[in-house]
Amino acid sequence: MVVVVSAMSGVTDRLIQLARQVSPEADPSGREMDVLLATGEQTTIALLSMAIRAMGGKAVSLTGAQAGILTDHAHTRARIANISPEEIHRLLRGGNIVIVAGFQGITSGGDITTLGRGGSDLSAIALAGALGARLCQIFTDVDGVYTCDPRVVPNARKINEISYDEMLEMASSGSKVMQSRAVEFGKKFGVTFEVRNSFNNNPGTIVKEETAGMEQVVIRGVSIERNQAKVTLTRLPDRPGVAARIFRAIAEAGVIVDMIVQNISLEGSTDISFTLNADELPHARRVLEPILADLCAEEIIARDGVAKLSVVGIGMRSHSGVAAQLFEILSAGGINIQMISTSEIKIAVILDESEIERAARLAHDGFGLAG
Amino acid sequence: MVVVVSAMSGVTDRLIQLARQVSPEADPSGREMDVLLATGEQTTIALLSMAIRAMGGKAVSLTGAQAGILTDHAHTRARIANISPEEIHRLLRGGNIVIVAGFQGITSGGDITTLGRGGSDLSAIALAGALGARLCQIFTDVDGVYTCDPRVVPNARKINEISYDEMLEMASSGSKVMQSRAVEFGKKFGVTFEVRNSFNNNPGTIVKEETAGMEQVVIRGVSIERNQAKVTLTRLPDRPGVAARIFRAIAEAGVIVDMIVQNISLEGSTDISFTLNADELPHARRVLEPILADLCAEEIIARDGVAKLSVVGIGMRSHSGVAAQLFEILSAGGINIQMISTSEIKIAVILDESEIERAARLAHDGFGLAG
Repeated sequence: MVVVVSAMSGVTDRLIQLARQVSPEADPSGREMDVLLATGEQTTIALLSMAIRAMGGKAVSLTGAQAGILTDHAHTRARIANISPEEIHRLLRGGNIVIVAGFQGITSGGDITTLGRGGSDLSAIALAGALGARLCQIFTDVDGVYTCDPRVVPNARKINEISYDEMLEMASSGSKVMQSRAVEFGKKFGVTFEVRNSFNNNPGTIVKEETAGMEQVVIRGVSIERNQAKVTLTRLPDRPGVAARIFRAIAEAGVIVDMIVQNISLEGSTDISFTLNADELPHARRVLEPILADLCAEEIIARDGVAKLSVVGIGMRSHSGVAAQLFEILSAGGINIQMISTSEIKIAVILDESEIERAARLAHDGFGLAG
Repeated sequence: MVVVVSAMSGVTDRLIQLARQVSPEADPSGREMDVLLATGEQTTIALLSMAIRAMGGKAVSLTGAQAGILTDHAHTRARIANISPEEIHRLLRGGNIVIVAGFQGITSGGDITTLGRGGSDLSAIALAGALGARLCQIFTDVDGVYTCDPRVVPNARKINEISYDEMLEMASSGSKVMQSRAVEFGKKFGVTFEVRNSFNNNPGTIVKEETAGMEQVVIRGVSIERNQAKVTLTRLPDRPGVAARIFRAIAEAGVIVDMIVQNISLEGSTDISFTLNADELPHARRVLEPILADLCAEEIIARDGVAKLSVVGIGMRSHSGVAAQLFEILSAGGINIQMISTSEIKIAVILDESEIERAARLAHDGFGLAG
């Protein structure tokens, strides 16, 4: 057994605060930030190892460097380049439980790095792949991935098995059980993992390669994302480079956009809409207003108070009429759809935020997801 | 410039407490303790490096492992085996201030180790030796080594230069400016270092090889150690193995003994006395009382409330009459000497604790140490 641990609750934030105190003006150096942050996980590997030994077990801790987790040089958001698991194998052969510091690695030059958000999950999945582990269990504070948020849809069920792609679409649609980056890594290297609860022994959700049986379920789950805003630029000239100009400006300002929708043009002009987190709306307006004239746009229409509902399932690919079914369900409930966007395995709609919970319950029931 | 740093005040104690919490019954594993404790210095190297960069300097941090500090496998009290300073040299050539984590190293097998008490001073002196540094400055909270404790002897002077041996005798006599282990390391590898104050720019005390001029000063300093106790075992049979039996029992109980005095035997029996910290006296009694009959000793006489006064100086070796001069000084002050012990460069006497401060002032003046 190999255990990957995170820092104790609050420790990483406290270390970041210390860094801000000594480096108030400039951004602290990424290299030094990583040396600092890596102490959080180094503390927990030692303590967990001691605790297991105190209970009579055999345990040895390894930092990311000692575990052979080699990364690139992108400090504070490094990517795992390679894992040399010889030391872990040696310790496992000696009958040890091996406790590895998550979230950290080392460059080929011997510098300490950290992996950024979702880093410990990523470490675990990458190690499971490198070690050829039978199973990788990700311990969280929920029982697994649900067909919808149980606080919104009381009869939501825990999903027993889900494909990587469905998990990714659920994650990008507001079901924040895990960071997408870790799921993508699992997909890339074919690592099956289980998302389960730290506080009970219930089986969790197995995330794995798509299997034939999975397509029989049309919709795997419904997810919602609140606190969204939509922005529309109206009557843009229908010519190349307009969309690029808009989203380059937005990206350079560091604003993260979610859905982007453009319909066909009528009378030589078109409208482009996008959604984003409502907190980012003022920022986006400040970026776009100065270039409005340049773009020859008529106006910006911006509104918050909207939310996104997504239905996700790889079964969609082989079942027609899923979109129509969703629209009918919402229509029957008297819920107006403001925007629509689809991918191969997801249909997402923007609704008024006040109606999002009712819409989720209607879709959940309508697609027969209840337990 | 290479800077060696310790952990922040209180951090090491807090980490030890965490270890006790998870490992309440057994002693935590030394290996894991070292992984844990090493985070203290890893935190400060990153923060100091960031602080220097924020001020416009160029700084890079190195853990003990990254700095090439190789140790043996004796966890929590490792000895430095070798230093490979290539990485430090490379960074120095690049114009960096190199910030190294004190107190820690790495074994040939890649395990993190710590050096035990005085570890950061030791790291600094060892690095200065390996790098061929011109000077090694040890920053403390005092201006240097004094001819006597200035709180006791107001006209005590800071000593400008002192030999390793004198520094060692002063340290073992209660002048706790530095751990003896670090001084011994400096002596062994001929590293000249300066003990100076972190809070001002005053020149400190240079600790170095003995020079010809040093012998002209008969006494370098006077040091005192309070809270001592003395134990005498009376009328022991004068035969081989008796002293060994006593001090083996004491050592196995973990009691640290300071002076040991045995006088010639009269009428086939002898008395053996030793001193120790008064806090350890009950423990020592518990160890000795059961073996008293075995030893054929008459009785144990134990008393606390005594203190030790030492005069130290390599000049003693070439000046006769130093001991006599000390005894005369004390006698003229009406101070009774209870025990005497001498080494080549030190004379130590045990006095009543109530008289120790006056004795120190008399000795300090009597040997002309005042500024």
